[in-house]
Amino acid sequence: MSNILFKKISFIGIGLIGSSLARVIRRDSLAQEVVAYARTEQTRSKVLELNLVDSSTDDISMAVEGADLVILCTPIGAYETVAKNISGSLKHGSIVSDVGSVKGSVIESIARYIPNGVHFVPCHPIAGTENSGPESGFDTLFNDRWTIVTPVEGTDPTAIERVANLWRSAGSKIEYMDPDHHDQVLAITSHVPHLIAYTIVGTATDLEERLKSEVIKFAASGFRDFTRIAASDPIMWRDIFLNNKEAVLEMLGRLTEDLGGLQRAIRNEDGERLESLFTRTREIRRSVIEVGQHIPPKPPKET
Amino acid sequence: MSNILFKKISFIGIGLIGSSLARVIRRDSLAQEVVAYARTEQTRSKVLELNLVDSSTDDISMAVEGADLVILCTPIGAYETVAKNISGSLKHGSIVSDVGSVKGSVIESIARYIPNGVHFVPCHPIAGTENSGPESGFDTLFNDRWTIVTPVEGTDPTAIERVANLWRSAGSKIEYMDPDHHDQVLAITSHVPHLIAYTIVGTATDLEERLKSEVIKFAASGFRDFTRIAASDPIMWRDIFLNNKEAVLEMLGRLTEDLGGLQRAIRNEDGERLESLFTRTREIRRSVIEVGQHIPPKPPKET
Repeated sequence: MSNILFKKISFIGIGLIGSSLARVIRRDSLAQEVVAYARTEQTRSKVLELNLVDSSTDDISMAVEGADLVILCTPIGAYETVAKNISGSLKHGSIVSDVGSVKGSVIESIARYIPNGVHFVPCHPIAGTENSGPESGFDTLFNDRWTIVTPVEGTDPTAIERVANLWRSAGSKIEYMDPDHHDQVLAITSHVPHLIAYTIVGTATDLEERLKSEVIKFAASGFRDFTRIAASDPIMWRDIFLNNKEAVLEMLGRLTEDLGGLQRAIRNEDGERLESLFTRTREIRRSVIEVGQHIPPKPPKET
Repeated sequence: MSNILFKKISFIGIGLIGSSLARVIRRDSLAQEVVAYARTEQTRSKVLELNLVDSSTDDISMAVEGADLVILCTPIGAYETVAKNISGSLKHGSIVSDVGSVKGSVIESIARYIPNGVHFVPCHPIAGTENSGPESGFDTLFNDRWTIVTPVEGTDPTAIERVANLWRSAGSKIEYMDPDHHDQVLAITSHVPHLIAYTIVGTATDLEERLKSEVIKFAASGFRDFTRIAASDPIMWRDIFLNNKEAVLEMLGRLTEDLGGLQRAIRNEDGERLESLFTRTREIRRSVIEVGQHIPPKPPKET
């Protein structure tokens, strides 16, 4: 029995997420042909060398020509240009999808370029590591993770199901969500935590030299985890904050208020308040463990 | 050749850190006798069951009687009472040490109860996991980690060296530091990061039910790491913030300023500023990797 889900799949941009999915597609022969468009010669030769695709090109029209599925895997700031540039070459009946971490504003900037007769199925696999580039991907990245699908109203259910099936083949569970609600959930689970990690590590980089070198030396005391998060791709994250501004600022507002409360509790030596919060937060951890989302992804080798 | 470093070692309190050190002591036969004082019957029987000690007791005077080394491993808020209660039973020539995460104010509260002829060698092993209790310990916890020793002026160098040697036997590297400087370094590397993690997870617990359950479900997007940190022992952390108030509030002040700057950058859609910070923070990660402090501790089994 053939495993083929799509005859030709095109990746527009192929970093950690795209290359991990490409690994799954190659491993299980889910497509007859896989093509990648990449801006840099380095990425184009890397994906060939890793045998992730049949061909790679810097000609974006050629990349999507005849493709049944086109997946945008660039930083989301590039989506509008990409959508404009592929618009005229998309095959009738084909599907355009993406893997971006923001959905609302991003869907707006893509949807207008999707011609009639082409389906648009926005997706967001909730998986990743702090590493970037096609060499960082691995085929188990999506195992037991969620992929959130945020289709716009009126989208052909068959197209949605075909894309969902591809993610299921990658080991992922599927959740359907309204784009704006997705952006709100991600603001608190992902965007604000990353912003905070960037801030703490940034504050540390501004310390005087001696203190800074000690912070690095004694990173095992908690700081380490923040440096890992704050090592994520700068362009990707810049684009996320610019495109999910409202939800991020709202959550950041709540967080700042709560932080102010804790600051006062410390100043007033209000041990009860501290203990009560620190006890409540343990429950959330238990819930995260219960739903099996506590184990970090394991790349084949620790880098 | 005998490995014995101390004839009798007493643990006052024995959770993650104490029990990990006790495992090393038993594994390498570094003491003839190991005793633990614990408040709860549960801990007293657990440490016997795990064969971490020769005996356990709820009589603190008996626990320290005849001991060559007494190590305080309770939450630091209990130190003063402990010091007062053991003061009269400490053997002449013996050493009192601890493993607390704050040194300045803590040394003050212990030092006054240390009788003449007893040495006081405050220590802080920079290692840990989010788990607590004697069952969570493991003998490789201190491997390639730093133990910071913050002796007060005039302490017998031989006593310092004997305690340092115990930590070296546990795989630890030794750093000597002024207590107040220790507290400043730990405020940024450990205390403020923990406070932030507690805050973010706390903010999430206050969300309306539906959003909260989604935050848990999609925790793999970054939130997961914060829930892990925010699952640390509430009493231990309450005491840390109450005892390192000045340094924590100062660092928190700097962090809040930097966070305000980022908030403005997002509001003004200042992509350049975001990208520049996110690029700078990558360097710190590289440094943390260079000094080998990036790999999290590996308990024998993932819980």
